[in-house]
Amino acid sequence: MADKQIVTAALAVIGNEILSGRTQDLNIAFLGQNLNDIGVQLREVRVVPDIEVEIVKAVNELRVRFDYVFTTGGIGPTHDDITPESVAVAFGRKAVYHPEAYRRLGDWYAANGREFTQSRKRMTLMPEGAELIDNEVSIAPGFRVENVFVMAGVPKIMQAMFWAARPLLKGAAPVRSRSLITRIPEGVLADGLGQIQQRYPETDIGSYPFYKETGNGVALVVRATDQAQIDAAAAEVAVLIRQLGGEVLDDAAM
Amino acid sequence: MADKQIVTAALAVIGNEILSGRTQDLNIAFLGQNLNDIGVQLREVRVVPDIEVEIVKAVNELRVRFDYVFTTGGIGPTHDDITPESVAVAFGRKAVYHPEAYRRLGDWYAANGREFTQSRKRMTLMPEGAELIDNEVSIAPGFRVENVFVMAGVPKIMQAMFWAARPLLKGAAPVRSRSLITRIPEGVLADGLGQIQQRYPETDIGSYPFYKETGNGVALVVRATDQAQIDAAAAEVAVLIRQLGGEVLDDAAM
Repeated sequence: MADKQIVTAALAVIGNEILSGRTQDLNIAFLGQNLNDIGVQLREVRVVPDIEVEIVKAVNELRVRFDYVFTTGGIGPTHDDITPESVAVAFGRKAVYHPEAYRRLGDWYAANGREFTQSRKRMTLMPEGAELIDNEVSIAPGFRVENVFVMAGVPKIMQAMFWAARPLLKGAAPVRSRSLITRIPEGVLADGLGQIQQRYPETDIGSYPFYKETGNGVALVVRATDQAQIDAAAAEVAVLIRQLGGEVLDDAAM
Repeated sequence: MADKQIVTAALAVIGNEILSGRTQDLNIAFLGQNLNDIGVQLREVRVVPDIEVEIVKAVNELRVRFDYVFTTGGIGPTHDDITPESVAVAFGRKAVYHPEAYRRLGDWYAANGREFTQSRKRMTLMPEGAELIDNEVSIAPGFRVENVFVMAGVPKIMQAMFWAARPLLKGAAPVRSRSLITRIPEGVLADGLGQIQQRYPETDIGSYPFYKETGNGVALVVRATDQAQIDAAAAEVAVLIRQLGGEVLDDAAM
C-alpha cells in the first residue's frame, strides 16, 4: 500500500446517540485531519445505529472500497455495545475472548480490587485473530481485523487508540492546503474561480462562505499534494480577489 | 405516511470540507434533534465528497430505504457546488433554471444593483419539477424532489430551510427520553442494565460514559415513544443505581 498514489479511508460512526442529536460527533473532524497528515484521505463517513445488520452492512460495503476502515463507538461493556460481535459477523469469524485482552483486564480488575464481571469480560470479546489497539486512557483495547480498525466512541479514548494505530497505517503524500479569506461575495468570485480550477486540475479549490457578526465573507481553500501547484493556484486566486476590488485577509477575519 | 408507526429519514452531508476535517459538522445533531421532535427518526447519515457519482449513489441508495432524505451542502454559485445537478442525475431529470427561483434572484440582484452573473444563475439550477424551499437568511432557495430535500451546508441557512420544509414532513410519535446520571462505572451497571433492557423491549436504553475534570460517570438514557414505558424503565434504572450504592445525579454532574 506504501506505493499507492492515493490511499483512502472510510469511517463508520456507530451510535444511536449521534443520530438522535444527543451527542455532537467530534471524531469525524479529528480523523479527517489526522489521517490527512499521514497521507490518507478520508473519503466517506457513515453514521449507523446500534443495530447488528446495519453495522455489518456498513463495514462490509466500506472495507472493499477503501484501503482503511475505522469504526467508532459500541465497544464498551453494556448491552448496547455490539460493535465487536457485529464486526465478527461482517468477517464471518467467531467472536471470542481475546486471550491477551482478557489477561490484561483480569489483572487490572484484580489489582484494583474490582470484580471482573461478565459484562467487563465482554470488552475482551473480539473477532478471532484480531490484533489489539492499545490506549493510554482506559484499559480496554480496541482492535484491528485486516483493514478495519475498531475504536471507542468517547473522543479522548478514540484519539488515544488512533495514536496507537497510526504506526500501522501507510499513507501516500499528504494533502496540503492554503486558505485565502475575502469579503468579495461568492457569486462575484465564482466565474474567475472556476477558470482557475480548470487551469489547475491537480488542485481542489473549495469555496466556503461564512456569516459572522464581524462580517460575512468567503474562505477559498486550495488543496493539493504538490506545494508548487497550491502556491501557483493560490497566487492566481489572490490576483482575482484584487482584480475584483477586494483584499486578501488573514484567518482572523473569519 | 401519516399513519406509519415509524417514520425514518437519512442525511447525506456533501462536502470535502467535512471529510478533510476543516469544518466541524453541526447539521447532523441539529437535524437528528429537530426531526425527532416531529416524530421522524434519523436512521443513517453519509458524508460524501463533492463528486457527482458519489452524490448520486448516496441519494439513490438512501431515497429508496428511508421515508425522507435530506442533503446539506453544495448548492452555492461556485464550481464545487454540484449537488443540484447530481440530484437531477439521481432522479433521471434534466437540470433547468427554476422559473420562480430565477425570477426571485434576478429581481433581488437588480434591486440591489448587483450583476446577476452566470454563476449566480447556477443557484437556480434544479431538477425539473423541483419545489422550492425558502429560507429567511439568504435569497437562494433549497428545493424538494419527491422525498429528497436539498438544503444549504452553512448551518444558519440550513436551519432556516429546515423550518421552511418542516410543514411538509409528516411524522409519527416522537421519541422521548429521560437521562439518569451516575458515578457507578458502566462495567458494574451493565449486567443489571441489560436485564432492564430485556424487560422493556419497547425502550432503547443507552449507556454513555463521560470523562470530565469534575469526575467520570455514565449517562443512562431511556428512549421510547411511550412516556409510561420510559418512566417505568427509568424507575428500575434508578433502583439499580441505588442498589449498587450509587446516587442518581442531575445533568449538572455531567
